Amino acid sequence: MPKVTQEHLDARRKEILDGARRAFAEHGYEGATVARLEEATGLSRGAIFHYFDNKNDLFVELAMEMNTRFGDILLERGLDEAFRALTAENPEWIAVLIETESRMRHDEDFVRRFEAKAADASPRIRDWFHDQQAAGNLRDDVSWEELGRFATALLNGLALRIAGGDPFDIEAMLRLLGDAIAPPRKRQAVRRPQPVAKQRK
Amino acid sequence: MPKVTQEHLDARRKEILDGARRAFAEHGYEGATVARLEEATGLSRGAIFHYFDNKNDLFVELAMEMNTRFGDILLERGLDEAFRALTAENPEWIAVLIETESRMRHDEDFVRRFEAKAADASPRIRDWFHDQQAAGNLRDDVSWEELGRFATALLNGLALRIAGGDPFDIEAMLRLLGDAIAPPRKRQAVRRPQPVAKQRK
Repeated sequence: MPKVTQEHLDARRKEILDGARRAFAEHGYEGATVARLEEATGLSRGAIFHYFDNKNDLFVELAMEMNTRFGDILLERGLDEAFRALTAENPEWIAVLIETESRMRHDEDFVRRFEAKAADASPRIRDWFHDQQAAGNLRDDVSWEELGRFATALLNGLALRIAGGDPFDIEAMLRLLGDAIAPPRKRQAVRRPQPVAKQRK
Repeated sequence: MPKVTQEHLDARRKEILDGARRAFAEHGYEGATVARLEEATGLSRGAIFHYFDNKNDLFVELAMEMNTRFGDILLERGLDEAFRALTAENPEWIAVLIETESRMRHDEDFVRRFEAKAADASPRIRDWFHDQQAAGNLRDDVSWEELGRFATALLNGLALRIAGGDPFDIEAMLRLLGDAIAPPRKRQAVRRPQPVAKQRK
């Protein structure tokens, strides 16, 4: 019997998740039938459900994988890069993600699975706001919890916008977000371009 | 034949919309069957569909009624009051609204009906940001379109939060929003409570 390495298992798992994300994005959660999941992953249902309990489990994994990825970007490269990463996501996938998470909030099994996994990722994001405020990089007249809620609400609202196919200027959003949550000394002045003649003088 | 006044027609229409909103909030869009719509409105299907073409039409009316109401509050009482009004909405209804709008974005009939109605309400909201910037009440280093997109994304993100039953401090959100979009001279200083002894001196 050939030895199956962890590396092989992880690669296969990732293959399944990537295929499932494409299937969900293209057909929606309900429309991503087992046959379509087989087609998108190039694997049999037996192989797919060897790695994941069921379709719900696959979806929860994908939703949490995105949370984890955003948490990683936030911690390693900061809030602006986390927001910019959102604009690189597939709008169809974001739309399915929002709609399905929203619809499943009354499904106890889903909520249980989701919260068990979210418990790993969410504290890192919460801690980031706490630590940044303690370091003087965020205003201190509003609690770090509320600063985190503000940034998260904006991120989710922009995700809805991306899902709807409505454009926006991410750099303008980041400038406004910065001025909302930065301490006063770090807020951007309104910079007007200086006339060239005057600069030369 | 008794004369049916416009007033009577309007009152009946409002009764149907209020009942339908309750039915959607309680059972979701799919779960709000015609039988449940009859129960919630206290009217027969014949009466209900005398006023509205079908369930989709009822939903579009409710979604647009909310847009119109927020537009009215924005124009009459300003951005802060429009945000505060959101927190007074039924979370269940907001959840159904977000989920259904999101799910129906590929339904051409829905999009057509929705956009035809949105054409009445959206320009008022757009104009508000334009006019406020022209009057010097909004920063002018970011276009009024992007200021509007920022505020709308935040509003929608907070709506998602309300739908999920997650609390937040609306006054903190408004303080942060204000500092994001106000001109520099109108931004809030970080006010620390003054020690009482010093104030008396």
